[in-house]
Amino acid sequence: MVSTLRSTTSGTGNPGSQSALRKLNEQRIVEALMAGPATQAELSRQTGLSTATVSNIVKVLCDASVVATEPTTSSGRRALSVRLNSNSAVAVGIDFGRRHLRVVLANLAYEVLAEESMMLPLGHQADVSITAAVNVLDRLLAESGVRREHIVGVGAGIPGPIDHRTGTVVQGAILPEWVGFQILAHLEERLGLPVFVDNDANLGALSEVTWGPHNGVENLMFVKIGSGIGAGLIINGAPFYGHVGVTGEIGHSTIVEHGLVCRCGNRGCLETVASTTIMSELLSRGQPEPMTPDEIVQRAHAGSAAVLRVLDDAGLAVGRALGAVANLISPEVIVIGGPLAGLGEILLEPIRRGLLRHAVPLVGETTALAMSALGARAEALGAAALVFQNADISHHS
Amino acid sequence: MVSTLRSTTSGTGNPGSQSALRKLNEQRIVEALMAGPATQAELSRQTGLSTATVSNIVKVLCDASVVATEPTTSSGRRALSVRLNSNSAVAVGIDFGRRHLRVVLANLAYEVLAEESMMLPLGHQADVSITAAVNVLDRLLAESGVRREHIVGVGAGIPGPIDHRTGTVVQGAILPEWVGFQILAHLEERLGLPVFVDNDANLGALSEVTWGPHNGVENLMFVKIGSGIGAGLIINGAPFYGHVGVTGEIGHSTIVEHGLVCRCGNRGCLETVASTTIMSELLSRGQPEPMTPDEIVQRAHAGSAAVLRVLDDAGLAVGRALGAVANLISPEVIVIGGPLAGLGEILLEPIRRGLLRHAVPLVGETTALAMSALGARAEALGAAALVFQNADISHHS
Repeated sequence: MVSTLRSTTSGTGNPGSQSALRKLNEQRIVEALMAGPATQAELSRQTGLSTATVSNIVKVLCDASVVATEPTTSSGRRALSVRLNSNSAVAVGIDFGRRHLRVVLANLAYEVLAEESMMLPLGHQADVSITAAVNVLDRLLAESGVRREHIVGVGAGIPGPIDHRTGTVVQGAILPEWVGFQILAHLEERLGLPVFVDNDANLGALSEVTWGPHNGVENLMFVKIGSGIGAGLIINGAPFYGHVGVTGEIGHSTIVEHGLVCRCGNRGCLETVASTTIMSELLSRGQPEPMTPDEIVQRAHAGSAAVLRVLDDAGLAVGRALGAVANLISPEVIVIGGPLAGLGEILLEPIRRGLLRHAVPLVGETTALAMSALGARAEALGAAALVFQNADISHHS
Repeated sequence: MVSTLRSTTSGTGNPGSQSALRKLNEQRIVEALMAGPATQAELSRQTGLSTATVSNIVKVLCDASVVATEPTTSSGRRALSVRLNSNSAVAVGIDFGRRHLRVVLANLAYEVLAEESMMLPLGHQADVSITAAVNVLDRLLAESGVRREHIVGVGAGIPGPIDHRTGTVVQGAILPEWVGFQILAHLEERLGLPVFVDNDANLGALSEVTWGPHNGVENLMFVKIGSGIGAGLIINGAPFYGHVGVTGEIGHSTIVEHGLVCRCGNRGCLETVASTTIMSELLSRGQPEPMTPDEIVQRAHAGSAAVLRVLDDAGLAVGRALGAVANLISPEVIVIGGPLAGLGEILLEPIRRGLLRHAVPLVGETTALAMSALGARAEALGAAALVFQNADISHHS
């Protein structure tokens, strides 16, 4: 198993070790309790863990105030009812965008306690948005009454690939000003909290299987279509990072052998035919201002023939790239996110057509395609989920 | 975790269940013992399992004759030395080809005890090769002196996709006569042994990380270039089957938008530009007999300009498809197998050029590319490995 880029250099250790197993079992009990209070015997049945293990973990979680217990009776016998003390463990999720910033506070029950988003100038340096994030977080804590000592960690999403070996943003990021930046070290120093960093598309994928309607799906791809095109993978139920942490780069699949030059240095990449940047270029010729993604959505709904044609061509190209992906990994679901998600079936239909045209029949028929229901919040919510999946919730206070 | 298509309908059960955990721990101890005999204390240190767990598992394995123990001393104290009783558990690996059949018997130490391959007529029905396999197995058992009760299971590789939901060979197989065939049920009935079935490219991948030089690699792709082109994936250390069992179908990535019609029904698939079938077609125009893969290899080594050009074009196309794969999953290694593996650098060089041309720079630089060293044995050896990874080695006798 590959660990998420995280604040400790020790990594998650041996996946079969006692501590890794304890953490996994803790998570299973917390997940079981998200459905509501349960007795220790019920938890044992639901998780398949022995009653002794459940009892030990409940004691540790109780000491950390993550759960509370009270005596009850079950089938006439004395028992201990356990309930989640949701607000005792809070995760911060930060979505760093090219021109926006979003911060959410979420509790263990995956409820949003506070949230704020703001615009940032295009081309801003990393330090500007980190300072903004620190200020927004302070404000949200003050407003919501969440105590700093209840924060188990901070998750941060970056719109660019991250080399997990060095913890730096890699060439090819949508944020060129951030390339080479030691995002993890800087955030930890400024926030004084454990930090977990990931690519925004990976967090989109994680949000779909934790917060979203695809909860528990084993193999899912989240495709973010925006100024760039990137994807995040959930494989065997967990985010997948491959060898160096850079995965899901479908924006750089070659679609047109001798097409436009891409910012990655290749030619005819999917991004050069289907990103909002190229759509805007195609639709704004001779106009003083480029068309924004929001305008593309509005005009498509209003029936603009040019906008619909550009979306159809882009959708087919995305579908072709997704056909290759589906042939390779056969996911249950592919979710489309990003600023065009509001287009719904207008964009989904050509993507589906491209997918079915280019996938092996059985694979095409068995790969579900959906628009993200989480909208602009997907990445920040995924960043909060990243914290709960990686932080040590029983040892934060 | 997705289970391999296997003989019991119960599946592997809850991956966190006691029995799944016991099996996993058994495998870890058997793997540790493959390096040589060890004391229980040493096994505990090497596996991270408690001494009590090691002691319990050693007892179970000893009862099943999988290991043998003898008293020894360690640091002046009495200890129990455990060694693998390799031949107590034998796996049968069968590679069913379009015109060949190969059967191997392998022991727990991954040593080949007996092996036989034979030619079969092109277009033969499934029953013909199953009967041949049964006869070859009987002969190998008789010759090698391996006792039938020591066989823990039979692994079988099929050159076509298998729908894991129904256990049938799917449309698109290189063996059209096998489509819709209930391969698993037929083999079990004829052999009277537990059977595990998989696609041949998946078994090629498994052989590389068990028998091959890439032992222990976490993320690997094995690409078989033959009359068709298919790939097998190792993800997070295990074969990856996705949603329906059909993965690694890179032969049907679109390379030429309006290219030749492929047997899958699409156009311009990688198979239509880089399989040995199309190479042979291109190189045999006007010849009474099509050029065989062996002849392609010979003529390339002899410096035939036409053969080298065809290989160069095919290699570039394969590399382009691999670039998209590497961008998506960033594997440590991609291994090229099949009947052209003997070409070595002649084929590897254009593939590498295509990969570097089409992958994101960081991903291209960090994806190793190699020819398979296992040759024509890769699939049968992988089939034997499939048995050891899935059969219950402590409960076969």
